[in-house]
Amino acid sequence: MPDIAYLGPPGTFTEQATRLLTEDFDAELVPCDTVPVALAAVRSGEVLAAGVPVENSVEGSVPATLDALTIDEPLVAVREAVIPVQFDVLARPGMTLERVETVASHPHALAQVRGWMGENLPKADVRAVSSTAAAAAAVADGDFDAAISAPVAGEHYPTLERLATGIADVRDAVTRFLLVRKPGTLPEPTGADRTSICAVISHEVGTLTDMLSELSLRGINLSRIESRPVKDSFGHYRFFLDFDGHVADARIGEALGALQRRCDSVRFLGSYPKADRAAAPVRPESSEQAFRESAEWLAAVREGRLA
Amino acid sequence: MPDIAYLGPPGTFTEQATRLLTEDFDAELVPCDTVPVALAAVRSGEVLAAGVPVENSVEGSVPATLDALTIDEPLVAVREAVIPVQFDVLARPGMTLERVETVASHPHALAQVRGWMGENLPKADVRAVSSTAAAAAAVADGDFDAAISAPVAGEHYPTLERLATGIADVRDAVTRFLLVRKPGTLPEPTGADRTSICAVISHEVGTLTDMLSELSLRGINLSRIESRPVKDSFGHYRFFLDFDGHVADARIGEALGALQRRCDSVRFLGSYPKADRAAAPVRPESSEQAFRESAEWLAAVREGRLA
Repeated sequence: MPDIAYLGPPGTFTEQATRLLTEDFDAELVPCDTVPVALAAVRSGEVLAAGVPVENSVEGSVPATLDALTIDEPLVAVREAVIPVQFDVLARPGMTLERVETVASHPHALAQVRGWMGENLPKADVRAVSSTAAAAAAVADGDFDAAISAPVAGEHYPTLERLATGIADVRDAVTRFLLVRKPGTLPEPTGADRTSICAVISHEVGTLTDMLSELSLRGINLSRIESRPVKDSFGHYRFFLDFDGHVADARIGEALGALQRRCDSVRFLGSYPKADRAAAPVRPESSEQAFRESAEWLAAVREGRLA
Repeated sequence: MPDIAYLGPPGTFTEQATRLLTEDFDAELVPCDTVPVALAAVRSGEVLAAGVPVENSVEGSVPATLDALTIDEPLVAVREAVIPVQFDVLARPGMTLERVETVASHPHALAQVRGWMGENLPKADVRAVSSTAAAAAAVADGDFDAAISAPVAGEHYPTLERLATGIADVRDAVTRFLLVRKPGTLPEPTGADRTSICAVISHEVGTLTDMLSELSLRGINLSRIESRPVKDSFGHYRFFLDFDGHVADARIGEALGALQRRCDSVRFLGSYPKADRAAAPVRPESSEQAFRESAEWLAAVREGRLA
């Protein structure tokens, strides 16, 4: 049974996501205090892989994960999971919403239920703790009356009762997670894949436009872009890019080759099936068949067989 | 001794260019009445190749050549020559500029010496004939007093005397010629090559920009572009493109493949050494070495060997 690290403590959304990411094999889930610790466990071989959050539709990206993926030995994402951000209110048995005087949770979670709390717990004292799971643990210990937690926390604290569920202000909020491991055989292309890279480019006029044109000209759909400063390299910017397609696809491979030549550095972060399994439409001129035919045409031209 | 066709009659700039294009082997030059006739002789195998004009720095392109290269069986250019457009005034022995009453030449030639004639032959009658060589022939026959001709015409009419030389109003005017033949082994890359293609694209917003971006993103320098209507296909445009580089070069091959996928059709018109032998600077990210390294990097990524 392989060990799989995740950003702990148990009872968080990351545990829920990591369970989903490993649902088809028997995995021993190992909570880690931070994302860098989880990734270090993968690099050292202590665990086979790690489940880490990369992006929240409300809160934005998870810088700790992005940064940790670009330093030290390369790791690649092999699976993706998208988890709805739905919060439960957990309390000790017998408690009711009307009697709640103290509520604890992680600051990000509190921010995402502010509207609901204003209506339903207007007088409660709000306490910030280190995680949504830690809040549930503290409630179980009798420190607070209620916790705003991930639904999975209820499984770790079965004595707690659910006073409310689905209380996030933004109904469709989701968090995206990746299962990352050491480089090795890539996941097979499925026709509904995503590729992630980190590219460093110099800070000159047009470099970003040119980089993006390498994708758009090949009909590649960009699903996410985010710049992060390069800490010790003035005048250079690091871009995290996610786009539809698998590195085994001709159009993706050619585009990645172009970026590798154009950019100061490119780190491949993985090609993996998209969580929504939605096939990306590929334009006729960017299809595998079109690339195959143009390669044959070019070979004929170069060999002087036709013009 | 191979036969080489050219746009006649003898004594024109095209003969001069075709001599230059074939100077390193014994060729029998065969004048043809029109460019299509010369190209048809190549296609039928009657001659090995043909010398044809493609572009004049003053008068512009030679539509008859461009059009004839895009229909029927493909032909490819294998050599390029650039000839200075310098005109001589040829007359029968004993004639002087002061006594010239009639001057004949091809209308294009007359247009290019208008300034000189205004100063030196202000009172002469100007007569348009079918070629600069025909003008010299007519002078030899006694029909006119003087001819504005290519310097090479003097060799065909040795009885004529040169009354003036280098009389073109534009000093640096040149005409570009190509030696075209049936597809076969391409000329070797020299580091100072030009590639010519004809591409047909649909008339939609952005298609031309996208086509040109395929070149610019790969650091390919466009030296000529000209659109010509596609006679029987409404909404489509034919573009003649010349750019630095050889189809054997990685950046050129990849760009041509991209155009082949993107355009309705692409006809390869040849890769050949540039007449000026001026090496085109290649950006580091577009060099053969950069392409080789990026291909190795991509192969490693695809095989999961590193990220």
